[in-house]
Amino acid sequence: MNIDAVLKDIYTQVQPLLAQGKVADYIPALANIDASTFGMAVTLNTGEFFGVGDYQNAFSIQSISKVFSFTLALRAYRQDLYQRVGREPSGDPFNSLVQLEYEAGIPRNPFINAGAIVVCDSLITHYANNQLNAFEQTLSFIRACCHDDSINFDQSVFESEMQYGYLNIALANLMKSFNNLDNDVDQVIKNYFQQCAVEMNCQQLSRAMLYLADHGSDPITGREFINGSQAKRINSLMLTCGHYDASGDFAFRVGLPGKSGVGGGIVAVIPGKMAIAVYSPALNKSGNSLAGTKALELFTTMTGLSIF
Amino acid sequence: MNIDAVLKDIYTQVQPLLAQGKVADYIPALANIDASTFGMAVTLNTGEFFGVGDYQNAFSIQSISKVFSFTLALRAYRQDLYQRVGREPSGDPFNSLVQLEYEAGIPRNPFINAGAIVVCDSLITHYANNQLNAFEQTLSFIRACCHDDSINFDQSVFESEMQYGYLNIALANLMKSFNNLDNDVDQVIKNYFQQCAVEMNCQQLSRAMLYLADHGSDPITGREFINGSQAKRINSLMLTCGHYDASGDFAFRVGLPGKSGVGGGIVAVIPGKMAIAVYSPALNKSGNSLAGTKALELFTTMTGLSIF
Amino acid sequence: MNIDAVLKDIYTQVQPLLAQGKVADYIPALANIDASTFGMAVTLNTGEFFGVGDYQNAFSIQSISKVFSFTLALRAYRQDLYQRVGREPSGDPFNSLVQLEYEAGIPRNPFINAGAIVVCDSLITHYANNQLNAFEQTLSFIRACCHDDSINFDQSVFESEMQYGYLNIALANLMKSFNNLDNDVDQVIKNYFQQCAVEMNCQQLSRAMLYLADHGSDPITGREFINGSQAKRINSLMLTCGHYDASGDFAFRVGLPGKSGVGGGIVAVIPGKMAIAVYSPALNKSGNSLAGTKALELFTTMTGLSIF
Amino acid sequence: MNIDAVLKDIYTQVQPLLAQGKVADYIPALANIDASTFGMAVTLNTGEFFGVGDYQNAFSIQSISKVFSFTLALRAYRQDLYQRVGREPSGDPFNSLVQLEYEAGIPRNPFINAGAIVVCDSLITHYANNQLNAFEQTLSFIRACCHDDSINFDQSVFESEMQYGYLNIALANLMKSFNNLDNDVDQVIKNYFQQCAVEMNCQQLSRAMLYLADHGSDPITGREFINGSQAKRINSLMLTCGHYDASGDFAFRVGLPGKSGVGGGIVAVIPGKMAIAVYSPALNKSGNSLAGTKALELFTTMTGLSIF
Repeated sequence: MNIDAVLKDIYTQVQPLLAQGKVADYIPALANIDASTFGMAVTLNTGEFFGVGDYQNAFSIQSISKVFSFTLALRAYRQDLYQRVGREPSGDPFNSLVQLEYEAGIPRNPFINAGAIVVCDSLITHYANNQLNAFEQTLSFIRACCHDDSINFDQSVFESEMQYGYLNIALANLMKSFNNLDNDVDQVIKNYFQQCAVEMNCQQLSRAMLYLADHGSDPITGREFINGSQAKRINSLMLTCGHYDASGDFAFRVGLPGKSGVGGGIVAVIPGKMAIAVYSPALNKSGNSLAGTKALELFTTMTGLSIF
Repeated sequence: MNIDAVLKDIYTQVQPLLAQGKVADYIPALANIDASTFGMAVTLNTGEFFGVGDYQNAFSIQSISKVFSFTLALRAYRQDLYQRVGREPSGDPFNSLVQLEYEAGIPRNPFINAGAIVVCDSLITHYANNQLNAFEQTLSFIRACCHDDSINFDQSVFESEMQYGYLNIALANLMKSFNNLDNDVDQVIKNYFQQCAVEMNCQQLSRAMLYLADHGSDPITGREFINGSQAKRINSLMLTCGHYDASGDFAFRVGLPGKSGVGGGIVAVIPGKMAIAVYSPALNKSGNSLAGTKALELFTTMTGLSIF
Repeated sequence: MNIDAVLKDIYTQVQPLLAQGKVADYIPALANIDASTFGMAVTLNTGEFFGVGDYQNAFSIQSISKVFSFTLALRAYRQDLYQRVGREPSGDPFNSLVQLEYEAGIPRNPFINAGAIVVCDSLITHYANNQLNAFEQTLSFIRACCHDDSINFDQSVFESEMQYGYLNIALANLMKSFNNLDNDVDQVIKNYFQQCAVEMNCQQLSRAMLYLADHGSDPITGREFINGSQAKRINSLMLTCGHYDASGDFAFRVGLPGKSGVGGGIVAVIPGKMAIAVYSPALNKSGNSLAGTKALELFTTMTGLSIF
Repeated sequence: MNIDAVLKDIYTQVQPLLAQGKVADYIPALANIDASTFGMAVTLNTGEFFGVGDYQNAFSIQSISKVFSFTLALRAYRQDLYQRVGREPSGDPFNSLVQLEYEAGIPRNPFINAGAIVVCDSLITHYANNQLNAFEQTLSFIRACCHDDSINFDQSVFESEMQYGYLNIALANLMKSFNNLDNDVDQVIKNYFQQCAVEMNCQQLSRAMLYLADHGSDPITGREFINGSQAKRINSLMLTCGHYDASGDFAFRVGLPGKSGVGGGIVAVIPGKMAIAVYSPALNKSGNSLAGTKALELFTTMTGLSIF
């Protein structure tokens, strides 16, 4: 399998799609991005790297950050975490309050916004015990995952999110009213939006996700982040819940555990083999990168590497 | 890997669990079944077979039948089928009317009851064009899949379902009111309950599911039932939607595409390798076989064959 | 107050509105009705009668029949009836299944379809104890209320409803699955659609509702149908729940207890004084007679007889 | 009719009920109130006054304040107000987010919390145009309605509400995300909790509500607050929506337009005749004063003054 050739072929095939999606415009800081950008990167468990297009363009990872914070929370709380956040697909849009109200403030899974907010809250509590700041620890973990200390977050995106984040603030207050947040709503929301504003490029992301392709350990350095059972759980969650109410369709078309962000990024994992990251900011109706989803579908079709 | 030894080990480990679940009692014909029964069977793509316990005990396949009828409908209608039934997890119990009412009579996926009823309706229309009876064709397809013409359905289970099937009749009438059923409600419901009442044992089921482990073709006879892309779709749907509102947990614990039935059976597929069937009638709170789910979890843990 | 003059004035004022609504077309038997028909009738507690326009045109009373059957059920079961049907506004359209599913098959009130179906079921059981047919008893009660034995139901409307009544059949089956129907679904639905197909004109309806304007007794004959407390309850229910999800607006605009039917009729009661019936088949968006609602609003405005 | 005797009789009859309810304990400032308190007051349109028990005990009017602020908003915006808040019963608890999410941030009516928050927002905007503070104007209006400038709000209740008001803050943020709030969430919530914390006694409240018993004008001073049509609308809204999801039961039992507060107060209006206020802090399951509801039921039964 010639991955370089596959990526080049994909790059050509997705060009006509770049004009079809719509860049996220709910905050000004994201609305001005060039819709025609497209980059894709593959890092093998062996360390070998392949990239095409704008794979070194940094972008806002947004909801992809949920994978990193959930990893930390699962490591810190293990099974106890599930008393506060479920593990089932929600069948609702990413920001629905309905399910939360019917189920007493327990979000369905850690990859919808409400679930990620609970995860942030749990990390604030966890690190506060050691006088540590939760977001700094999350950022530090992301840097460790991709062996790159240059990664940071974008202050203007963060501030923009804080200013327009009414729905997430509503979710947080609703959960607080059900006693499912320990810390101040403002503090939790700040942490949540900071992690959403982290900037990475495709190369960094594909490198960072490698621990999920090797049972929880970085296959290159050998460093264990979580155990194999936990990695399996994160992968299964990404497959069933990683793309909001289009998760079934993604499993269908791509056949890989993956997580998307409204910034236009998607990561995917092929257990035992590699991690993939793709970036294209124009989104489809479900809020996932349109060309990015297609690129991953083409990748598994051309390489035969779908898990199904 | 010694599958015989793995199965024997599982058999021993699940014994204490057999007393913990609860046999389905919504119809008398199912309520009297011995809760301590346990059987498990594995058929490899090579044709090799392994069985343990009561793997030759016939039982009511119930919702596992949805895999067979969906296969036929997908073959008959291809993409057009999705105008009438979705491909996303429902996030609701198997028999919820709420989602159906909010989404104008279009069920979320073919593995919740409403979706399977629409699938039956589509098959009635499809076969009526050739003066054929849809259930007979479904039964005939099941026989072909497992190379065994002795398979039949249990008349008393069928009649019992018809007598107490108010909720499914409600679902069907609701969809009819939204113009998502072409045929008479009575006819569709009859077809649906007939397929639910099909009886098979673990050996037959593991043999019958082999086409989903080999890109749509029976790996032993080479006969193609559906194409590879369709098989991939069915597998991904089983993974994300195969166990109602415990689908995420099943993906989590077992890490395989699978489908359960309220009769106590579960099937699972390892693409490229094998199909597995397990039977134990005592159910957990989500309506899936309690010991059966555990047995599959043990199987993938012991063999390392989870797709994640 | 010159009621004759008021009615004539209203008749003139509503003429431009007759073209604005939309006649119910969910069954052919109703779809062909002349939208320009308008009739209104007032019967005082003294027996004095006033009519304008097509007040002797018979029409399908549809949901207005729910007032009569609820009266009979309340008389038969008293407080016990409320174990099976609530007394609160539903906040949902007349035929919603959502509330019913969340609240275990107990309809919010007797004036939404589900509630009226439960009421029919309770009457079937009640009269069966005396070898009587529930619908015949309901019809007989309606005749007694308006002192007119010529009233009957329209067979073609009834058959049309039976043929297209999927949603009501869905509601009935859902409640049956929650054990909130004692009798066969078919029998209950038949009874329900028979009462909906009763035909009356405005004069008859205004006469028939007089018992609700005089504490449960016919003010002309003195015959007691129900007691004063029960009449108060029916009136309060008509005010809060008589017009589906436009009940608040009706209370707002008309300020009287009332009940509408999809056939275009509306009845209203002024306790201590009179009953009013209006008929105009073109409906507004909420399924209530457009000109009829306006006519009642004009009536209370011009006469100062709103209860508020 | 001897109102003094009626009130004394009621006072005796409700004594055994005082131990049955439960004082609101969601904020400390309310939790410590003596559950055995009971007071009732009647002010006739003529100015005549009757009181029994603790009718001069001041208490937190809480949701009763919604009547005053809605009056001001209706006066300021007339029909335009209904583009932002509906006029229908909600069929849901007072603080439900579900309806709000399904209906794009437009609350069902001004007497559920979300609706009252929108009303506060509209008043902030309205008075800001004249450099006036909305809460000060609301308080000033309440004082004018009861001709008593001593009325004020309780700072400790206000602060307590602010501290634990997560659910209302969630509602406000959700509506802000739907663009149905013009001002800062914090400012709107502060205004809302200030008006909830206004303290009045039964005598003051029965006096203050008199304008709703006389077509919008104070029958004693003759001062017009709103027009007759607006008064009718407020009364009809109180009848259909004044007691959350027990509004139907209140209309049923009491048969008067009324509004309750979680502080234990209830006001009711008999158009053309009088206003009534009752106070007893122990609540029933729906969050309305248990003994207060019974007292009003007894009052209309004994005096025959139900509007039905």
